[in-house]
Amino acid sequence: MTARKRTSKKKAARKKAVRKKAGARGKAARKGAAKKASTKKAAKKRSSRRKFVGAKAGASSRAAAATPDSSRRVYFFGNGRADGSAAMKEVLGGKGANLAEMTSLGIPVPPGFTISTAVCAQYSERGGKLPAEVKADVLTALAKVEQLMGLRFGDAEKPLLVSVRSGARASMPGMMDTVLNLGLNRVTVEGLCQLAGERFAFDSYRRFIQMYGDVVLGLPHDRFEQRLENAKLRKGVELDTDLTAADLRALVAEFLETVESHTGRPFPEDPKEQLWGAVEAVFRSWQNNRAVAYRRLHNIEDAWGTAVNVQSMVFGNMGDDCATGVAFTRNPSTGERNFYGEYLINAQGEDVVAGVRTPQPINEPSRTPDTEGLPTLEREMPQAYKELVRIYKRLEKHYRDMQDIEFTIQRGKLWMLQTRSGKRTAAAAVQIAVDMAKERLISREEAVCCVDASSLDQLLHPTIDRNADRQVIARGLPASPGAAVGRVVFSAEEAEAQVRAGEKVVLVRVETSPEDILGMHASEGVLTAKGGMTSHAAVVARGMGKCCVAGCGALAIDYAADQMRVGGVVIKAGDVITIDGSSGEVMLGVVDTVTPELGGAFSELMTWADRIRKLRVRTNADTPQDAELARGFGAEGIGLCRTEHMFFEPDRILAVREMILAGDSASREAALAKLLPIQRSDFEGIFRAMAGLPVTVRLLDPPLHEFLPKTDKDIAAVAGELRSEVAEVRAKLESLMEFNPMLGHRGCRLGVTFPEIYRMQVRAITEAACVVAAEGIKVKPEIMIPLVAHAAELSRLRADAAQVIADVRRERGGSRVRPSIGTMIEVPRAALTADIIAEHADFFSFGTNDLTQMAYALSRDDAGNFLPHYIEEGIISDDPFVSIDEEGIGQLVRLGAERGRSTRPDLKLGICGEHGGDPKSVKFFATVGLDYVSCSPYRVPLARLAAAQAAVEQDEAVG
Amino acid sequence: MTARKRTSKKKAARKKAVRKKAGARGKAARKGAAKKASTKKAAKKRSSRRKFVGAKAGASSRAAAATPDSSRRVYFFGNGRADGSAAMKEVLGGKGANLAEMTSLGIPVPPGFTISTAVCAQYSERGGKLPAEVKADVLTALAKVEQLMGLRFGDAEKPLLVSVRSGARASMPGMMDTVLNLGLNRVTVEGLCQLAGERFAFDSYRRFIQMYGDVVLGLPHDRFEQRLENAKLRKGVELDTDLTAADLRALVAEFLETVESHTGRPFPEDPKEQLWGAVEAVFRSWQNNRAVAYRRLHNIEDAWGTAVNVQSMVFGNMGDDCATGVAFTRNPSTGERNFYGEYLINAQGEDVVAGVRTPQPINEPSRTPDTEGLPTLEREMPQAYKELVRIYKRLEKHYRDMQDIEFTIQRGKLWMLQTRSGKRTAAAAVQIAVDMAKERLISREEAVCCVDASSLDQLLHPTIDRNADRQVIARGLPASPGAAVGRVVFSAEEAEAQVRAGEKVVLVRVETSPEDILGMHASEGVLTAKGGMTSHAAVVARGMGKCCVAGCGALAIDYAADQMRVGGVVIKAGDVITIDGSSGEVMLGVVDTVTPELGGAFSELMTWADRIRKLRVRTNADTPQDAELARGFGAEGIGLCRTEHMFFEPDRILAVREMILAGDSASREAALAKLLPIQRSDFEGIFRAMAGLPVTVRLLDPPLHEFLPKTDKDIAAVAGELRSEVAEVRAKLESLMEFNPMLGHRGCRLGVTFPEIYRMQVRAITEAACVVAAEGIKVKPEIMIPLVAHAAELSRLRADAAQVIADVRRERGGSRVRPSIGTMIEVPRAALTADIIAEHADFFSFGTNDLTQMAYALSRDDAGNFLPHYIEEGIISDDPFVSIDEEGIGQLVRLGAERGRSTRPDLKLGICGEHGGDPKSVKFFATVGLDYVSCSPYRVPLARLAAAQAAVEQDEAVG
Repeated sequence: MTARKRTSKKKAARKKAVRKKAGARGKAARKGAAKKASTKKAAKKRSSRRKFVGAKAGASSRAAAATPDSSRRVYFFGNGRADGSAAMKEVLGGKGANLAEMTSLGIPVPPGFTISTAVCAQYSERGGKLPAEVKADVLTALAKVEQLMGLRFGDAEKPLLVSVRSGARASMPGMMDTVLNLGLNRVTVEGLCQLAGERFAFDSYRRFIQMYGDVVLGLPHDRFEQRLENAKLRKGVELDTDLTAADLRALVAEFLETVESHTGRPFPEDPKEQLWGAVEAVFRSWQNNRAVAYRRLHNIEDAWGTAVNVQSMVFGNMGDDCATGVAFTRNPSTGERNFYGEYLINAQGEDVVAGVRTPQPINEPSRTPDTEGLPTLEREMPQAYKELVRIYKRLEKHYRDMQDIEFTIQRGKLWMLQTRSGKRTAAAAVQIAVDMAKERLISREEAVCCVDASSLDQLLHPTIDRNADRQVIARGLPASPGAAVGRVVFSAEEAEAQVRAGEKVVLVRVETSPEDILGMHASEGVLTAKGGMTSHAAVVARGMGKCCVAGCGALAIDYAADQMRVGGVVIKAGDVITIDGSSGEVMLGVVDTVTPELGGAFSELMTWADRIRKLRVRTNADTPQDAELARGFGAEGIGLCRTEHMFFEPDRILAVREMILAGDSASREAALAKLLPIQRSDFEGIFRAMAGLPVTVRLLDPPLHEFLPKTDKDIAAVAGELRSEVAEVRAKLESLMEFNPMLGHRGCRLGVTFPEIYRMQVRAITEAACVVAAEGIKVKPEIMIPLVAHAAELSRLRADAAQVIADVRRERGGSRVRPSIGTMIEVPRAALTADIIAEHADFFSFGTNDLTQMAYALSRDDAGNFLPHYIEEGIISDDPFVSIDEEGIGQLVRLGAERGRSTRPDLKLGICGEHGGDPKSVKFFATVGLDYVSCSPYRVPLARLAAAQAAVEQDEAVG
Repeated sequence: MTARKRTSKKKAARKKAVRKKAGARGKAARKGAAKKASTKKAAKKRSSRRKFVGAKAGASSRAAAATPDSSRRVYFFGNGRADGSAAMKEVLGGKGANLAEMTSLGIPVPPGFTISTAVCAQYSERGGKLPAEVKADVLTALAKVEQLMGLRFGDAEKPLLVSVRSGARASMPGMMDTVLNLGLNRVTVEGLCQLAGERFAFDSYRRFIQMYGDVVLGLPHDRFEQRLENAKLRKGVELDTDLTAADLRALVAEFLETVESHTGRPFPEDPKEQLWGAVEAVFRSWQNNRAVAYRRLHNIEDAWGTAVNVQSMVFGNMGDDCATGVAFTRNPSTGERNFYGEYLINAQGEDVVAGVRTPQPINEPSRTPDTEGLPTLEREMPQAYKELVRIYKRLEKHYRDMQDIEFTIQRGKLWMLQTRSGKRTAAAAVQIAVDMAKERLISREEAVCCVDASSLDQLLHPTIDRNADRQVIARGLPASPGAAVGRVVFSAEEAEAQVRAGEKVVLVRVETSPEDILGMHASEGVLTAKGGMTSHAAVVARGMGKCCVAGCGALAIDYAADQMRVGGVVIKAGDVITIDGSSGEVMLGVVDTVTPELGGAFSELMTWADRIRKLRVRTNADTPQDAELARGFGAEGIGLCRTEHMFFEPDRILAVREMILAGDSASREAALAKLLPIQRSDFEGIFRAMAGLPVTVRLLDPPLHEFLPKTDKDIAAVAGELRSEVAEVRAKLESLMEFNPMLGHRGCRLGVTFPEIYRMQVRAITEAACVVAAEGIKVKPEIMIPLVAHAAELSRLRADAAQVIADVRRERGGSRVRPSIGTMIEVPRAALTADIIAEHADFFSFGTNDLTQMAYALSRDDAGNFLPHYIEEGIISDDPFVSIDEEGIGQLVRLGAERGRSTRPDLKLGICGEHGGDPKSVKFFATVGLDYVSCSPYRVPLARLAAAQAAVEQDEAVG
């Protein structure tokens, strides 16, 4: 590992450690959420934050933002004046923009300048040469720095040293190269000896040669490391810090020799030559493999380029009146309003990560059990601390967000090196947003917008206690969040049996099928060996709000032996495991979990969101239990109640199979007659749970073969139950099997070919509605006909349904129940002919799952063989089943909505695919003008928040 | 069977017999073609012909057509003057319009009048009552008829008798009701006795009561039949004609009694009451079940209604100076320019169909072996014949088409009862069109338009000899035209083996799969028990121009016993059968077939078509043989050369399987290296066959599991051949199996995940092109990348292909071969994002098969369970795999074309789905502005003709 990599990794680790301690103090840290937010989302967030800053920041930066000088290439900052501002991230990169902004705010920042991102492109275009005019501007800016610092670049007595750092528009952690202490040479190092002592000077020099050799000259890193090791061996010491000034002086000579012998040229003595070399290296690093791969992964455009920040060095390691530290303006784990951080006396970043000394708390609220007894910065350097508090408050107020800051104290003087929005857990994000709104730092609209909607998901599920010990034996896909602990069972039946017997179980299957639904429901969680994020197990588990780890390929499941093998471990049925649906981890035994508390901040934020949003949020629910759960989460109706899941309950599957095996419509009707009262009572329960709210019931959708047994054993059993021949059942199964069931005999096609099925269902819905209405409960049933491809299908089935409804109303003495009738728009042709279809529909519900599968030619169940490869290679940026593909499938939704309303302006429009629970997709649906989205119960809060954010964004776009 | 039904059926049979004899004289009759032309197409043809007539017919009819009196309800015709014209079919129905037109032309037509179709609607609206003003108009028109005929309706001495017939806009054979001899009662029958003899008068009276009783009064038909039988029994005779006038007088009395006892009211004596009853019955018949079902089946709108034709009766059975006959103005079987027909002396239609007497030829050219020695009309009634000749020539010239006419000679005077466009065989249609253009009756554009393009298909295949004896044992779907005779084989391997041994075979399978391709190719024809018109067997057979009967459900195939059972018959492997792919018939033993001769007329017509059309026509061909065949049929390139069929040849399937089972890309490349020279030589052959013409090669498309064995036995064999483990092969197979292969890992997704496959193919294409180019042959290779859904797929694969092409060109010393690179547009998303995709494509080829499957959610292989039901029930009118669904899928084609050209105006656009061989679809593609269509070789002429027709129609629309 190179020094560079190690440094950046260690730095990240340190930050993480700070956050972790913050969490250990209060609730368990849930850093996953913050990490999950992709760079893209982060970029978006930044850009919306930039807007706030642009609107409200001080006059100096506003002026700069308003009239950026397009010919300017080098932006100076120092002593309260800066050419740039926070609004200029595209030109200055994130780091440079914030350094400029802090400077303009009067905050002490070591002076320096930023070479703009535009130069990065110029550098490549000119085949790796810095334009002369840029060099001239750099020297001008450098002169200003010298003047401010009272030092001179290359001066023998008072040498100016600088750091050279990359800084792109989007954060690319550890991707770019950095050089510190630049400006040292045989002459200036002696000056530094005078200023800061010999040991310090030569240690700095030694580090500089090492870094520069690696980053700029491309010397193998181990050449230096080996000599350092030798020096320590010779001396008989273990730590770098045990080397004396003389040792280091000798080492420097060795290093310089090493460089010359390897490159064939002496190490550059001229500080300007050093500077040009470092600047060019930063620009070159934009094109290195790591950076290119990272950009592809995070959708960062190659053309953006990086800026270069050249900044006067300050040192936290010049003595005991020096220190360095990091802090968050609020607790990043809980969101509590406490200044929170840690520091080290007489140290530089590198010393901290060396792990020799334990960082100290900056104040009492930052103290953890690890730091018992260590003095705080507040006590040790009260002046500097006071100044730091003043600054953090200023920064938070200015940026109107919790900040993550870095500082160095050099000989008692505080310098700020960095400020940026701090990463936080989901819980902290909610707390901070609500607090800041109450503090009037931000508006409620802004508060709603500054929480990542998708992070809410984890707030609603129990999670693994971060501090718990665990033995991870395998890792699958984090398919449905939450954590589950239970005994392993290998079949749905066994799951139900054990749960009846009072056990908690985790259902383990190669993959699941509709027959496993009840077993999945009974289990604490589901673990599968096959299938992706959108496999049956994943989709159904998310719908149930049940934890699921899918596609865990390391499991070798042996149903016959009732056991599975993972690596060397054999796990038998009955053994206890724990699975984590947020990380995909599978663990042996019981691992402690924590149940989240939905505090007042959460409710408050959701209330604000509800007031802001225009899009309604319904839920997908098939049972009264789910309906109630979702209502608790704020669902305003059911957007999708699937009737087929009901068919799998043991008391009805037999009648369903009888119906399927029926040879004519008379015996089909006889079987259906048995199902009618059962379905009716299902619907009664749901209508009661959803009193006063609309309930969209989808008529039978899946192909009939899904209800038939598949294995020889099951076929024999079913034949026995039905008093039918095995051969007959098998023949029926074969006649129903399809090459492409997705495009086969299902949905409304069943309704057209076997009209008695839908008639039974419509009757059950209407009768149930009449019963519940008679209890004085308001019912709003909506009957949804699936898989319509042609208006004639809907027109016929609608007429049929209307007839049944009229019959029931008559039978029930003229009940006022009046179900509306609409259709799914899930077949591309339906979207294309939506104007004609709308003539027969009271509402449309876009089934974006199937619409994506068909219009993208992507079978969800089969995409595992190539879709991950596509995403990895950057051919497509998002899984189109997670976020709707706006470019392609989105066109069909937009077109379907427009054309539908063109012939029927009052058409109600919704969406009930998985996309209804994805914030990015929800925002898209808002722009299309849908009336509601529908998602699984646990995603309802998330959708409410995303809908509110969409409304704010739309208002901004208009205003 | 009712009299009405029997009559119309018999009439149809007589017509058929005439045509059949015409064929027997010359070439075998191929009436199938003419019958196949659907009503819809016929209606279209009629409408385009109407245009010609409208433009060129005589002044009187033109005036009438130009200013139709919208308030007029009753249209008189007689004695050279008519209120209507041929252009008024919508108002007068087909029959009424032609009667008016003939009258205006001065042709002797029994006078009468037509009650317009508008009255049909009025009749229903008024709850089954004729409006009084219509009755008044009818009486006015009737008075004119009386005056012209010198007879009076209801007159005791000179009674006028009329026929009352239906006549809708579109032909609805046998659907509507007719009443003859109306006006007879106890009084007028005596007058008729005076005029025409007692036996004639009472026979007419008896028939009238019977028809009126059935059609108007709804009396069960058998009531009359039984009394007629009794009368013959009492008399001891067998034939109706053996009954005397007295017998008939007694029978009439019995019939009148029957009516009264059954209806409770006496048979109406008042001729006017009779007339109102009959007119209303015709209007009512528009709503009878048969008519409604027929309309639904043939897309005839309910609102069109029927007209009623009331016409003075004329009699061909009043003595030996009377006759009746039918004729075609040219030979309907061969198209020869001979007046062609048959007649009977002293007869009415009913007598002819009674089958007692053999109809006589009207002239020598109409004589057949059956009519040896019978006198011709030309000799027997030279005056009438001469008149008939004058009239038929006038009609043909006027209507500018071959006519089917009906005439009656009453006491030496010729009356024309009907004229209409004559149905004809495909061969006759071609001959007639070319002849008429040469005679300057029509233009060449019109000649091209008056042949039904889809009928050409049968001209190119051998067909069953109509006159051959046959034993039909089952009937399946006519999946691919032509006839085949051969020994039954039950496997593709056996087919190949037998054919190598010199046998001719018919391959019989439950259904076929890609593995059967070579066996299908070797066979004379293919017969399957399962699958529809677009099953694998059907599609592939049509592509090969091979006869196929598909979905013959009656076959119980037992592979194990090497036999099949059909009804009671057992057919063993080796038994000879004959199959007819045009009718779907399966026959025992050898049935004679005839090979069509493509005469000069065909070539001439095609040359005209080629001059007119703008759309180019390519072919789908995978072998040099097919390519040559198609070139012979006029193909202008290959629009689709599938590379996967090549993979199934025995010498390469092993390498293909090795490639699939390869664990890494190195071993995959090793296997591909074996395939490279084989593929190269395939392409060389095709490029040579298509010298100078473009050849579009599609890279590998199907999912890899299609190439692996499926049965245990085959898996074992393959494992042996590959020196691999059975378990390994099985595991690979399982890992490749997909839930919805159509939407799975295939097409360019294979190219993305296994780039070495496409690289090999691109190399083979480019190398082959270089080799052939070096021979001095011009090659125009086009590389087509399938299943692109996202522009990024194409951009990546294009870059990859371009690299390989550049490599090959360099290796070959800078060859000038420059393959273009394009894509299929077959995924809906690709059509929607065509503007972006076009940036990376030199051409698009619409894959409308898959586009239909995906955008319509219709798996071709699975649609058999519901699509036939949909068509039967009129939910959709056409199978969207036969004719493109313009309303839905057509939008995607249009959109794809427009958007593609929006970013790349020179984009070449084609279509290579099955629709390229469907005339209706070809016309649609012409309107969309595609550059070419591509279809199977045997469909190339059909597409050329359809393309020409499209050009004419477009010119008409513009001009």
